[in-house]
Amino acid sequence: MVTSTVTTTTSTVRARAEGHALDRAVELAERGPIAGGNPRVGCVLLDPTGAVLGEGLHLGAGSPHAEAVALSAVPASRRAELSGATAVLTLEPCHHHGRTPPCSQALHDAGVTRVVHAVADPDETAAGGAAWLRSVGVEALTSADAGIAPAATARAEELTRSWAAAVRRRRPWLVAKTATSLDGRVAAADGTSRWITGPASRAHAHSVRADTDAVVVGTGTVAADDPALTARDADGPLAEQPLRVVVGERDVPPAARLRRGPGQWHHVRTHDLTAVLEELYGFGARHVLLEGGPTLLGAALRAGLVDELHAYVAPVLVGGGTAAVRDLGVTTITDALRWRTVSTQRLGDDLFLIARPEGAQ
Amino acid sequence: MVTSTVTTTTSTVRARAEGHALDRAVELAERGPIAGGNPRVGCVLLDPTGAVLGEGLHLGAGSPHAEAVALSAVPASRRAELSGATAVLTLEPCHHHGRTPPCSQALHDAGVTRVVHAVADPDETAAGGAAWLRSVGVEALTSADAGIAPAATARAEELTRSWAAAVRRRRPWLVAKTATSLDGRVAAADGTSRWITGPASRAHAHSVRADTDAVVVGTGTVAADDPALTARDADGPLAEQPLRVVVGERDVPPAARLRRGPGQWHHVRTHDLTAVLEELYGFGARHVLLEGGPTLLGAALRAGLVDELHAYVAPVLVGGGTAAVRDLGVTTITDALRWRTVSTQRLGDDLFLIARPEGAQ
Repeated sequence: MVTSTVTTTTSTVRARAEGHALDRAVELAERGPIAGGNPRVGCVLLDPTGAVLGEGLHLGAGSPHAEAVALSAVPASRRAELSGATAVLTLEPCHHHGRTPPCSQALHDAGVTRVVHAVADPDETAAGGAAWLRSVGVEALTSADAGIAPAATARAEELTRSWAAAVRRRRPWLVAKTATSLDGRVAAADGTSRWITGPASRAHAHSVRADTDAVVVGTGTVAADDPALTARDADGPLAEQPLRVVVGERDVPPAARLRRGPGQWHHVRTHDLTAVLEELYGFGARHVLLEGGPTLLGAALRAGLVDELHAYVAPVLVGGGTAAVRDLGVTTITDALRWRTVSTQRLGDDLFLIARPEGAQ
Repeated sequence: MVTSTVTTTTSTVRARAEGHALDRAVELAERGPIAGGNPRVGCVLLDPTGAVLGEGLHLGAGSPHAEAVALSAVPASRRAELSGATAVLTLEPCHHHGRTPPCSQALHDAGVTRVVHAVADPDETAAGGAAWLRSVGVEALTSADAGIAPAATARAEELTRSWAAAVRRRRPWLVAKTATSLDGRVAAADGTSRWITGPASRAHAHSVRADTDAVVVGTGTVAADDPALTARDADGPLAEQPLRVVVGERDVPPAARLRRGPGQWHHVRTHDLTAVLEELYGFGARHVLLEGGPTLLGAALRAGLVDELHAYVAPVLVGGGTAAVRDLGVTTITDALRWRTVSTQRLGDDLFLIARPEGAQ
């Protein structure tokens, strides 16, 4: 009886310490880049008393994985304590020789005897880390099995959701952006559209571009708006630029702004957005931003390809002109596409809403 | 030198006490009804030490004014202290014999020797209260002249803004409501529109109806949507209903829902919304809600009659159908109507935004 109580108390204390470590791992991971093809991952190493030995995050493709960063962050004076240590991770440790050795092996080699992860690795070539660890005698388990509070696991899932969905489907996570007036217009009758939304919305949209692997527009938008599609901040274009992709059979005019740098652009002469997304996945893209126009957005929505809607709505009324989306095939209101609001934010005078399809996570 | 310092300190202390009293008066006034034709007013009576003697608010046409309520709220044991007391008011005391005697006189008769008000009475027939009080030796001044912090005065101005604007212009304050999809649609191609926004938005819209004197729609909306236009809550129609007004030359079908109770309805066979609003003002309406449709909203906007926009935006995409507003005469984006966002709120999955014309208070 006494033994059982002590055991319960010990595992409760451990679950709490590991829950804090998972929260911290998420916090670290969020500092990593969304773009670049790799998941954002955080790792916290704990000694048997629950004190932090080292922590790390993954800074993107070509950089060491979070586990390696955390292991190398342990001070020399405490390296011996790695023997018997616990690793708490947002994502299951990888188990393949990529540009870095498998993290499963690195954790085991360092003496770690317990590995807790929140999200299973959806990548067939990298998965199996937990199973291998168990096969060599390491206690490898999920955060749920470790008794960690569901909220911490949910944060890790949200952090990893878009990348994991892309890898599982072998198709990038697609965010569709609209920037409209209150009456849903993206341009006036004469085609002018600069600017409907305000400076705070536009700055926000640039930061989203910077976090994406590719920005996609239709040839119609190139003809109508001649967008540069670069990611800029107050100081001008950023050093890292998403790939700019034009979709459609029309030519891209020689003087089009997106032909000029910085960064690369690419024209895909098709209307088949699924094929375009698969091609972009092959290039390593996991996050793609669709910036219009109304026809391409309609096609993406009809095909069920849009994972997330980013809607900037300005307190402006136009009364006519170009609507944000065309050709949804909806004739009666019960067939309208309904989304679930994930978050809302005020940006200057504008509203910003993130939504996902009803039923999606 | 010493005397001057003491004086400054005394007036600072007094301004702070009167500022708190004005905040409290606003808080009281906000509990009063917006509909009914009268302003929302709060009154706090202070003794010379700054302690509260009594407080009151105006509960609408036919009820005693806030000043009378506050005077009668002073306990019998403290009535003698009214001699030399200060009245702090959100609105200048009235000076006309309406359904109640002038508040200017009532305050003076009670022995009040200082009257501080935030907003001047814009009503020609009721104004002059402060001037008359000064003429009989009462220290009557504005909250700004009394040294009260501007934030408290701003709250009183916001509280009184719509009613005061209506009275100054002899035309009701006009709120235009839109309930749209993210792409600005109020109905699908087949005319169906139930429901685009969610239950939280619809409940909110009913509470706004309950706070208005009249709800206006065009004959086109009656034909398309057959709205009841009653103010309802979870238990059904409210006891007090706004006047339901149909504008336009077409007939209102005999079976139209709005012909049925509760409350009254009225058909004005004109497209001249200015004339309609003036007529409603004559009936005592100070707050009017325009609920569509797109043609009437366009006409109201073109005529510059809309004081405030209430936009409910649902995370829904329709891709076609009826747009929220028509015929604004805007052909290029720089001519679009731009509004200033006053507040935003999330209602379930929907967004709710209140905006006023740029440049308006």
